[in-house]
Amino acid sequence: MARRKLILDLDTGIDDAMAIAYALGAPDVDLIGIIGSYGNVIVEEGGKNSLKILELLGATDVPVYLGESHASQTDHFDRLPVSANIHGENGIGGVQLPEAKRPLETTSGVDFLIDAVNQYGKDLTLVPTGPLTNLAAAIKKDPDLPTKIGNVTIMGGALTVPGNVTPYAEANIHQDAEAANAVFTSPIRLTMVGLDVTLRNILTKKETQEWRNLKTKAGTDFADIVDYYIDAYADFDATLHGCVLHDPLAVGVALDPTLITSFDLNMIVSTDKESYGRTIGDTTRINQPDANITVGLTSDSKRYLETFMNYLTKLFKQN
Amino acid sequence: MARRKLILDLDTGIDDAMAIAYALGAPDVDLIGIIGSYGNVIVEEGGKNSLKILELLGATDVPVYLGESHASQTDHFDRLPVSANIHGENGIGGVQLPEAKRPLETTSGVDFLIDAVNQYGKDLTLVPTGPLTNLAAAIKKDPDLPTKIGNVTIMGGALTVPGNVTPYAEANIHQDAEAANAVFTSPIRLTMVGLDVTLRNILTKKETQEWRNLKTKAGTDFADIVDYYIDAYADFDATLHGCVLHDPLAVGVALDPTLITSFDLNMIVSTDKESYGRTIGDTTRINQPDANITVGLTSDSKRYLETFMNYLTKLFKQN
Repeated sequence: MARRKLILDLDTGIDDAMAIAYALGAPDVDLIGIIGSYGNVIVEEGGKNSLKILELLGATDVPVYLGESHASQTDHFDRLPVSANIHGENGIGGVQLPEAKRPLETTSGVDFLIDAVNQYGKDLTLVPTGPLTNLAAAIKKDPDLPTKIGNVTIMGGALTVPGNVTPYAEANIHQDAEAANAVFTSPIRLTMVGLDVTLRNILTKKETQEWRNLKTKAGTDFADIVDYYIDAYADFDATLHGCVLHDPLAVGVALDPTLITSFDLNMIVSTDKESYGRTIGDTTRINQPDANITVGLTSDSKRYLETFMNYLTKLFKQN
Repeated sequence: MARRKLILDLDTGIDDAMAIAYALGAPDVDLIGIIGSYGNVIVEEGGKNSLKILELLGATDVPVYLGESHASQTDHFDRLPVSANIHGENGIGGVQLPEAKRPLETTSGVDFLIDAVNQYGKDLTLVPTGPLTNLAAAIKKDPDLPTKIGNVTIMGGALTVPGNVTPYAEANIHQDAEAANAVFTSPIRLTMVGLDVTLRNILTKKETQEWRNLKTKAGTDFADIVDYYIDAYADFDATLHGCVLHDPLAVGVALDPTLITSFDLNMIVSTDKESYGRTIGDTTRINQPDANITVGLTSDSKRYLETFMNYLTKLFKQN
């Protein structure tokens, strides 16, 4: 079997860092590039964080491209204070990793995505775990992209549970609801790994301790980074005793859709003021024979955590 | 097989009238009583409408009990103007049916429900298609009711699509969100037939013409009643070309759960001002091993419509 071509679109970010590790640890995956997005951090910092994590994990051959620096309807991006609380000021839990030797690419992330879709078509898997600004911009520039691309699996949205930035909206979608709506209502086939399923996948300090016990640089640094995240979550929800594996779950589902149960629905993303960023069924298209969004509902969390730990631990042992 | 004991809790209402017809036309069902609720109409009118429909369909042996006359947190009920638009001033499309010979029962609907649960237990199926005020009142009076009752299938709520009275809330739940929340968060096992699935089941004038062609009183009267409903829907949504089979679908699913796909979720009903009546997953209980609400997501609408027409046409032929 040919190795699967994978692009991650990340606002790195602690769970984005775990998504990178998952992709590098998974078998038969060719991570051909990472697109940087604003969100948890500003775009330049996210891109640099991705390069630092790649170098930490020995993957210095993976290029990182910068995508859009702000939402489609605005001209700038202000990082939310809560993002610094959850991900640390530097986005990776305050852990000081050396500047990566590899520089950021000069091609834009949007052009890289369009070129990759045209080169690999249905063999390409895209996993955006931040705002959908880059994907929407690529669709705007290449309107046939939705039917040319293979697998698109996003971390974002909330259908059967409340949002995490408002009662209606999940943070990634809320960053740029107009972009998300353009993607959701395009002909693209998309799997939505929203809060519906991510909240069912928790990592605790029991697991990070296993990484720490490896006594490798990657194991120790990742344990430090993720422990910061676990402690930050404890401030929001003392009953959780861990952190939610938002972004790495999306990579997991992209590579193995049997990790979730799902159903297909035609959806819209609200751009109304009150419900801005709400991901919800489109009643005007409810009786169409096909629906383009596969929404995750439940997950095989035990099997996912085992897979997650297998992939990451193997990688951390070697680095 | 013993005939299944069934209680309907209705605010009759045109689609409630179709729910009665579906229950009477279905094989192996013993409709042991109807509880009247406020909602589409005031409680007395709903109860009287149920008696009229039962008599029209030759089911003069079915008793009708009056339930609560208003929501749990209020002291009165004001019928919404939109209810008169959709169901007609008299609740049954302005069609004049004779006063029923059978009177309303004097026992309260809540006591009737409690007695029936204690008599039939797991053999009892309850289908509320209006507010959950009566069921919540019964649970308050008999706290063990949730674990004693057999099958509870409601028409109400909206999880994966917007509401129909606010962007967040479906009409039945919105009438009394406090009661609905008490029911949803009790240990009751409940199937939610919400807008998620009902909007997928449409009846058109092609079908009502089949009833009219029977040239029976029941066939003609039901065609007149439901045509009023179809015309009323056309004012709200000109693209629908029919009416939605909300309440009779709940009866259909109660008798044959294979008509829908579903998933299990622990849920709450919002009583906040803005999102009052929103039915949504409870993230604090998302990782509990069991979930008590089975939420309908999609439906086998072709098979349901065939079954619906078989049951009702057979009944209308005889009356």
